[in-house]
Amino acid sequence: MTPYDEDDPVYALHQGGKLETLSTAPLRNRDDLSLAYTPGVARVCTTIAEHPDTVWDLTWKSHVVAVVTDGSAVLGLGDIGPAAALPVMEGKAVLFKEFGGIDAVPICLDARSVEDIVETVVRLAPAFGGINLEDISAPRCFEIEARLRERLDIPVMHDDQHGTAIVVLAALRNAAKVVGRPLSDLRVVVSGAGAAGVACTKILLEAGVGDIAVADSKGILHAGRADLTPIKQWLVDNTNRAQFAGTMIDALRGADVYLGLSGGSVPETAIAAMAPDCIVFSLANPIPEVDPVMAAKYAAVVATGRSDLPNQINNVLAFPGVFRGAIDAGAHSITEEMKLAAATAIADVVGDEARADYVVPSPLDRRVATAVAEAVAACARQEGVTA
Amino acid sequence: MTPYDEDDPVYALHQGGKLETLSTAPLRNRDDLSLAYTPGVARVCTTIAEHPDTVWDLTWKSHVVAVVTDGSAVLGLGDIGPAAALPVMEGKAVLFKEFGGIDAVPICLDARSVEDIVETVVRLAPAFGGINLEDISAPRCFEIEARLRERLDIPVMHDDQHGTAIVVLAALRNAAKVVGRPLSDLRVVVSGAGAAGVACTKILLEAGVGDIAVADSKGILHAGRADLTPIKQWLVDNTNRAQFAGTMIDALRGADVYLGLSGGSVPETAIAAMAPDCIVFSLANPIPEVDPVMAAKYAAVVATGRSDLPNQINNVLAFPGVFRGAIDAGAHSITEEMKLAAATAIADVVGDEARADYVVPSPLDRRVATAVAEAVAACARQEGVTA
Repeated sequence: MTPYDEDDPVYALHQGGKLETLSTAPLRNRDDLSLAYTPGVARVCTTIAEHPDTVWDLTWKSHVVAVVTDGSAVLGLGDIGPAAALPVMEGKAVLFKEFGGIDAVPICLDARSVEDIVETVVRLAPAFGGINLEDISAPRCFEIEARLRERLDIPVMHDDQHGTAIVVLAALRNAAKVVGRPLSDLRVVVSGAGAAGVACTKILLEAGVGDIAVADSKGILHAGRADLTPIKQWLVDNTNRAQFAGTMIDALRGADVYLGLSGGSVPETAIAAMAPDCIVFSLANPIPEVDPVMAAKYAAVVATGRSDLPNQINNVLAFPGVFRGAIDAGAHSITEEMKLAAATAIADVVGDEARADYVVPSPLDRRVATAVAEAVAACARQEGVTA
Repeated sequence: MTPYDEDDPVYALHQGGKLETLSTAPLRNRDDLSLAYTPGVARVCTTIAEHPDTVWDLTWKSHVVAVVTDGSAVLGLGDIGPAAALPVMEGKAVLFKEFGGIDAVPICLDARSVEDIVETVVRLAPAFGGINLEDISAPRCFEIEARLRERLDIPVMHDDQHGTAIVVLAALRNAAKVVGRPLSDLRVVVSGAGAAGVACTKILLEAGVGDIAVADSKGILHAGRADLTPIKQWLVDNTNRAQFAGTMIDALRGADVYLGLSGGSVPETAIAAMAPDCIVFSLANPIPEVDPVMAAKYAAVVATGRSDLPNQINNVLAFPGVFRGAIDAGAHSITEEMKLAAATAIADVVGDEARADYVVPSPLDRRVATAVAEAVAACARQEGVTA
């Protein structure tokens, strides 16, 4: 007997997985076989050996990305290991294909040390056009991404960091427009100093948000804290100008934006104490930190990670187009400028239609990936990070 | 300007590669998205975390194999590196899909030491149902395969060894039938002591061939040689009963079977000196060691690796069905018995129709993979190497 209900639509859909490979070379007769395989293929191999750049033309490298995880921080489930993470990686591959026209392969690593994960990904990189890191726990994810960016000449992006950050910035651009405020004018409280919290804070600073306070489970990060990891020290050095030393709830008093990336629950009194026309992005999934119905009593704009509510902040708005654009441009990496360009492109799909319940496009809006890819590729070409 | 002729059919076919991924989960609306991705997928992950065997039902693991190379021994091209090997690995994936219904993913490793390759494959194994090692040079290929078989609980097979060996045995079974001789009665000379030479010798011994002499570039392997690697020492201990110490050409005098797996060229006088009704399998590609037209003057049966001649010895007759059968049966490894069963199944597709120019099925014969898969799965279940 199976330990799950086979008739449940979720399990029925997942029987046999969600992914296959597809051959684009016909095999009708011996001639086909000798073109796609031996002896014909030998000439193609020789050409690539002599002219390494032709691997981008003569193989699937130009449209295949490895989706790499160690299963240590999967969704809200935590450390469930590489095999149990596979359905999420397959789902990611489905989204890559569907929205970016990119073929993605789940790589679930039975490895935990930064060293082992970095070495493994470096070794398997030759047959891939990009590396999407996924669901790797903080703080290892920061060092793994940094070292892979250093070692590899193909785009590498940890989506939990930068996919989230790009979409949050896109949504905040439009939310600020809805409430008639410039980004530089907003005081933001970020709840969560993990992968997403760090990356969102960085991109918001780059986009010109002036005043950000970041909280972890022990309160707002400030110079007086004795427990700062290197990345939290960086946050202290670059946020919280007033060196506020209280709780996240205290920091919300009079704040313009709450960005929830932590789970847990925020009481109504804290939201009621925010500034007029405040903005609440509560992204814990499936249960937002701030009840969205309650939030709407006080906030001018509310966004969540939920598919059954308006303003869904979903990474799928970013990663397919980001990788598509980076690879199309022959970029060796995904730069900060390219991420900012992606956020602007997503926000611009909404454009003048922006309103309180429409600050980001639907995750199913097919225009988004194309717009993001074009913006990212244009940015890459302008920056000169091309092949 | 491209360094190749884009109108050449081989290069035209290879533009953009030969492989894609295909999503089997529809994404028409938000409901679809929440089944295939969050939040629905979380329950599937939890089920796998709690019941690890369900990964075989609820992901693509049960039908996906990694085709792993380091690019060190690609076709007859030698050491061209991992990127230049990718077209062959894509071709292999095309054949896996077409004949075995198996999805295969090219993994081209920028790694050379046995240790690094073994560790890398162990780490990436969780998301795959099997490991096909490909085009890894001898003698590293022997240790890599042996260590991976030890470390992993999924089928691992180095196809250059065992795929070739299985098809050679199948062909020899029918060739022996054509000339009316039992296998035990044949004296065989194997030219080549690399991956294929070693594996063919082993399977022929297991199948009951009594007298085999194996030659490397320095002549027949015998106990008096001072340059024996561990695997060549094994060959010395298990072949060449008479401890013949001459050249491969000398050994061919009066021999019943020549098995060429080495390249180079064998003179007509050597073939003319073989026994009456002799059998010549000359598998170097694209240029066989023995000219097939010349061979036909002396041999009762001639087979090559070429697609434009009868009796093509092609690994595609073996590996799709072998992996399909092993995975279907839940086998943790591919045993010697399973390989012998595969060879018999291939030979039996020809069956009573065996004749001099039809000792193996066509590589395009769709019946073969099914027959091999059934035989291998039945053998696995009988041996009890199942999950």
